[in-house]
Formats: sequence, C-alpha cells, structure tokens
Amino acid sequence: MHGFAQRVTVEAALIWLEGQLRPLPAEQVPLASAAGRVLASPVTSSVAVPGFDRAMMDGFALRAANTAGATPYNQLQLDIVGESFPGRPFAGQLGQGQAVRIMTGAPLPAGADSVLPAELAQLDGPHVRVHGEVTPGKHVGSVGEDVSVDAIVFREGRTLRPQDLGVLSSIGAGCLPCVRRPRASIVVTGNELLPGGTKPHGFQVTDANGPMLAALVERDGGSLAKRQIVPDDREAILAALLDDVDVVLVSGGSSVGEEDHVPTLLAERGELAIHGIAMRPSSPTGMGRLGARLVFLLPGNPVSCLCAYDFFAGRAIRGLGGRNREWPYRTVKGKLTRKISSEIGRLDYARVVFADGAITPLAIGGASILSSTTRADGFLLIPADLEGYPPGAEVNVFLYD
Amino acid sequence: MHGFAQRVTVEAALIWLEGQLRPLPAEQVPLASAAGRVLASPVTSSVAVPGFDRAMMDGFALRAANTAGATPYNQLQLDIVGESFPGRPFAGQLGQGQAVRIMTGAPLPAGADSVLPAELAQLDGPHVRVHGEVTPGKHVGSVGEDVSVDAIVFREGRTLRPQDLGVLSSIGAGCLPCVRRPRASIVVTGNELLPGGTKPHGFQVTDANGPMLAALVERDGGSLAKRQIVPDDREAILAALLDDVDVVLVSGGSSVGEEDHVPTLLAERGELAIHGIAMRPSSPTGMGRLGARLVFLLPGNPVSCLCAYDFFAGRAIRGLGGRNREWPYRTVKGKLTRKISSEIGRLDYARVVFADGAITPLAIGGASILSSTTRADGFLLIPADLEGYPPGAEVNVFLYD
Repeated sequence: MHGFAQRVTVEAALIWLEGQLRPLPAEQVPLASAAGRVLASPVTSSVAVPGFDRAMMDGFALRAANTAGATPYNQLQLDIVGESFPGRPFAGQLGQGQAVRIMTGAPLPAGADSVLPAELAQLDGPHVRVHGEVTPGKHVGSVGEDVSVDAIVFREGRTLRPQDLGVLSSIGAGCLPCVRRPRASIVVTGNELLPGGTKPHGFQVTDANGPMLAALVERDGGSLAKRQIVPDDREAILAALLDDVDVVLVSGGSSVGEEDHVPTLLAERGELAIHGIAMRPSSPTGMGRLGARLVFLLPGNPVSCLCAYDFFAGRAIRGLGGRNREWPYRTVKGKLTRKISSEIGRLDYARVVFADGAITPLAIGGASILSSTTRADGFLLIPADLEGYPPGAEVNVFLYD
Repeated sequence: MHGFAQRVTVEAALIWLEGQLRPLPAEQVPLASAAGRVLASPVTSSVAVPGFDRAMMDGFALRAANTAGATPYNQLQLDIVGESFPGRPFAGQLGQGQAVRIMTGAPLPAGADSVLPAELAQLDGPHVRVHGEVTPGKHVGSVGEDVSVDAIVFREGRTLRPQDLGVLSSIGAGCLPCVRRPRASIVVTGNELLPGGTKPHGFQVTDANGPMLAALVERDGGSLAKRQIVPDDREAILAALLDDVDVVLVSGGSSVGEEDHVPTLLAERGELAIHGIAMRPSSPTGMGRLGARLVFLLPGNPVSCLCAYDFFAGRAIRGLGGRNREWPYRTVKGKLTRKISSEIGRLDYARVVFADGAITPLAIGGASILSSTTRADGFLLIPADLEGYPPGAEVNVFLYD
C-alpha cells in the first residue's frame, strides 16, 4: 500500500515502447474497404490508363493537316464517315478529307491525330464544315498519360485517400496489400463495475473506460477483438490477458496496492518492462509483454486512463498498424490567461479551454473527473524540466477534435 | 454540343445549397456505435457521478478530528472496525476513535469525513497508528463532483469524442439521440465503364469515381445505400435517380452534350437549380432536387468529380448530418515556387506539392488525370477576382490528409 519505488521518465518509457513497434504483416483488403488503410508494399500498375488515345472534348476526330487554313471565312469541308462513342469506337480507318463524330472519352479512330471541338465545326448533311485549325494531338488524351505501365503508383506506408482508391480502381487493383489492423482487447477490472451505458445504482459504478477505450482503438486504426469487465481476481484477469490479440489494454488495478493484481501477474507470466512513470496524471501506468502481446496497464481513474492511452497505447496501435505514431490532435498556439504549476521531474497533462487564442487551464484537476476532458477543448503539456508557465506564456495546445 | 449559356458563381451555387441543408431527424444510436456521431438533442443526466462519497486514495476512513495533533512523534491510535472496498462497502457506522480500511474508489463509510493516506498510517494488530493530520473532506471524492443530477452533459450538435462516450456511459446513457446519417446513392453513368477494381481491357475503362465517391461519403459521415454503374440511357438513369435516399451523386453525363441525359431528366422530373458553375475544373456541375432528394450532377472526369464533390456534395452530406460544413482539410501557409495563372471570373482549384513551406503547382492540369490528385499533397484556390499568383506569393494550401 505504498508508492512506487521509482518512476521512469516519459522519454524512457517511450524508448522502450519504440523498440516493440514494427508494423504487422500484410493482409489482402478489397478495394471497397481500403480507404484509410496503410499499404504494406508498393503497388505497381500492369496496365496503362488510359489504355487508348481518347477524345478530351466533344467534336470531330480528323487529321490536323486537313484543318490547315480553316477560318470562319474560309471554311473547309470534310466527309463524316462514322461516330466514336465511349465504349463504342469507330471500327474503320479514317482517311484524307474524312472526319468521325466523337464524344469526350471515346477512342480516337485509327488514322486520326486530333479532335476538332464542336465549337469550330458545323454539321452540313453528310459533311462537316471546319471553322478553325487544330494541331496534331490537340484535345487527345494519350495512352498512359494518367498511369503508365509498370509505374509505381503508391509506395508502402501510404495511408489510402479517397482519390487513391479511384486510381487503384482504374488500374484494376481489386485487392490491396495492407498492414493488418492491430487486434486489441480491452479488459476493465473492478468488482464494483456495471457494464457501459447501464444506469448506476447503490455502490455500483458504471464502466466509463471501456466505451472510451473502444472508441480510441477504432480512431487509431485498431480492430477491437473483445471488450470485457472482469472482477479483481487473479485467475479471471490472467484468463483475459491471454486472449489471442496483438495488444491488451487493461484498465484498473495497475498500481501497487494489494488489489492491484495486474502488474504482479504480468511480471510472473511475461515481462513487466515499465511500471510507474513520472507524469501526472497516469503515474501508475505499466507496459510489458506477454508472449507476442503488448500489454498496457492503464490506471482506472478515467482521466489517467485517457492520458496513458494517448501517451503509450495509442502510439502502439498506430505504430503496429503502420501509421504515423504521433498524436492525431491538431495543435494551435495561444497565451495562458493564468499561471499553471507543475513539479520539476514530472511531465504534466493539463486540460484547458481554448478560445480566440486564450488558453485557460481548467480548475478541476482530479484524475477521476472525466467530464474535465469533455469540457476541455484540449490539453497542454508541461515538460518535466519546468515548474509550470507564468500567465501570458505562449504554449501549444493539442485540440481534442 | 455547345457550351453552357452562362455559369453561376461558386458563391451563388453555395447560397442555393445552403438553403437546402437542415440536419436530418434524430435516431437512437447505441453507445458502442456513437463515436463520431452528432447529438440531435441535449443529453442531461438523471444520476450523480459519483453516486456516493468515495475514497480517492488507499488508506483509512475516519473522522478528521481524530487525527488532530498526530505526528510521527505523537502517533494516535484508532480501532479498525472494518473494510470498505469498491462495490463492497463497510456496512456499519463509524464512530469516535474508529477507522475503516479503505481502497481507492470505495464508498466512504457513514460517520467518516476523510481518508488518511496509507503513508500516514501504520497497522498495529486491530489498531492503526496515525502519523499525521487530515482535514474534513480530505481525499474524498464527493457525490456529483464529476456529473451532477440534471446537469446538461452535452448540447445538441456535439460530435462525440471517445471521452464523451466515457461520460455518457457513466451516467447510464445506453442509447443516444443522434442526427441520422445521410443515406447516399452513387450512380456512375457510362456505357464504357467496368466495375471498380476490374482490369481494364480493349476500349473499356474501369470506373474510378465510384470507389472514390464511396470513400468520400464515408469520410463525411454519410451512409452509402447503393453504388451502381448505369448505361447512358434515360430510363436506366431515371430509375437510379429514384432510389430512396437523401442524396444522389451522379457521376458523368452532367454537361450539355447529347449523351448528357441527367440534367434534362432532373429538369423534367424535379428541379435543376444550378447547372454550369464558373470554376475550373468542374464547370459542368449541376445541383437540384428530386422529391426529397438532393441530387448532384458531378462531371465524369475524375479530378472534376473530386472537386465538385468537395465543393458541393460533401458540404451537403456534412450539413445534413449535422456536422461542420467546412472542409475536413488542414490548411498550411507557404510560398509559391512559381507563377500560377487563372482567368478573371472563374475560381480555380490547383493541385500542388507542399514541402518545407514551398508550394509547387503540378504541371499536369488535365481534369482527366486523377493521379495528379494522388501525387499532390493538396490544393490551393485562385479566387474568381484574380488572374493568378506571382512566384513567391504566400497562399494557403488545403492538405489532402
């Protein structure tokens, strides 16, 4: 029932964590599900896009030389020998003095080298009267101008954007090699806990951390394999730790009290690499391994749980998933409206309100007050080598949304 | 086969659109699916959190008055009369000279007013020796300090964050009134089109816009009800327009050519409010209504399709879903490495590479070259009243990710 013998710095904890993070192996993902996924290997194209020369405007396919000297006052006449529509090309060969009506996107007929836009042409029975000149290649999209054969379309590590799916679709990539999403299980410990979203009563408390952690895992590209509440019981906790997942997030029982079974269990059965971190909140945070699993011991106090997830577990889920490990939060600069205090040797995570460049620390500091993180617009960090910031100090705020 | 008689400005098109956008009605959403959803009405709490006074540290519940004068050299002795654990409170009443062992989060026994931390206490058989003083209320979390009864926990319009789900869970909100997600259908027109992700061959082209639009709809909080490719045929297109959705996105056939059936159909059966917009790309964009549906006519050229979606259709999906209507893109400032030209009277959307503050417009300008949007880091806008920007101009870039 006493404190941690010593706490490691946040930096030291992150160095250990960094050594554990290698992107998971690839899996094939159908194109329709690939938005936001991370490529595990480069994608090259086996086809050219477009696969044929095509008209970029509605008009007439012809030989540019046949328009030489055409003006509104010197109209030239060509014979219309057919039509080319998208997917229904002109089957023949276009010759001297001939034109083929063509629609945007339609294949350029053999023998033609350019497209005369409709504005420079006038229909005259079986003929077209040409009012202006075009040069060879004009209004023609050429083979491979979007994607050439054997081009590397995307490199590994790319997080796929909506337009990337468009390009991948156009080269016929129906499935893509993506980094597997980390499978996570959430284990919330506590005899007093009711399942998320049930009305609390008597001396029971409703689990807040499970629903919060599930949303965080999803945000960071993880896949939630299981979420459970287990009693403060060694056997029950051990069974939950052994789920077949990549990452186990345990909430509660992470400290050094006699009901804190998780650190002991992890130390006995696997590796408790980090336990106790010089930060506030979240100092009773632990990390380790159990077989192939990365295990995070997150404090039960919900603000501490959020903070410890964001510093460590979220980083792991993003890293294992091949993503940028840094926070997804936007940062803004602003000025403190009042002093904020900390202690040398400890990193502080302080919730703040941000409005018009003014940063106001929330008065409520307790790690048990989750609503402080919903009233806050974001948070700031006070590094371990500072005692705080004076009023008026310019600092970065990480915005929660 | 001639151009638009006149084009409306982007501003005028947005004013029409704004008039169509009211958040959709509410639906009940289970807590576990509510991350990122938008509240349709305020949420108030019918319970206090915590629902009882609780210990904030491991130690001994007692009366603060019974610690008066205690120091390591003047230890006071109290009788231990029981234990209080989370979910297993001390059943009796604590009296003068008594203490109850208590764990963090456990209910404070009746008769106690404070918690003596374990560090200030020493067990001595059935007694505890007190080494220090506490004041009334010390290390006690009081009823309702996180959420009080009848408090408005979140207002309508809130996009729910992970920690919001934690707070909502703790007050027993198992279901939440959220703005219904807009149901969208994607109708890609073109006889030449192969389904997304199939290898193109002959004069067939693989649909790029369908997969791209599906990912954009998802990104903006819409729900994809249907995605189909239909031939350039009035009856087939009309049938697709009549799907039971909130928003119809039609790609292709949006201009004024003879195969462009969609504008005519919409004008005949519903309202074609906007057709032809003074912008590049995407000038052949249309918007209107068909019954309760908002219909967007997006150009078939994929860059134009992306741009028209982002300017108009995405805004509608975000607006109907109760979200911030502005672009989800981060902006950064930088300096142009070279001149970029436009025309007075037309808004330009130019793809650019952004590196270390330097903005380089991509040389490829064609609206058919979708890979220009995947090689680009983002885009800049040239307003209609400018002819462009000189080299070195400081401009905003909207980053694609």
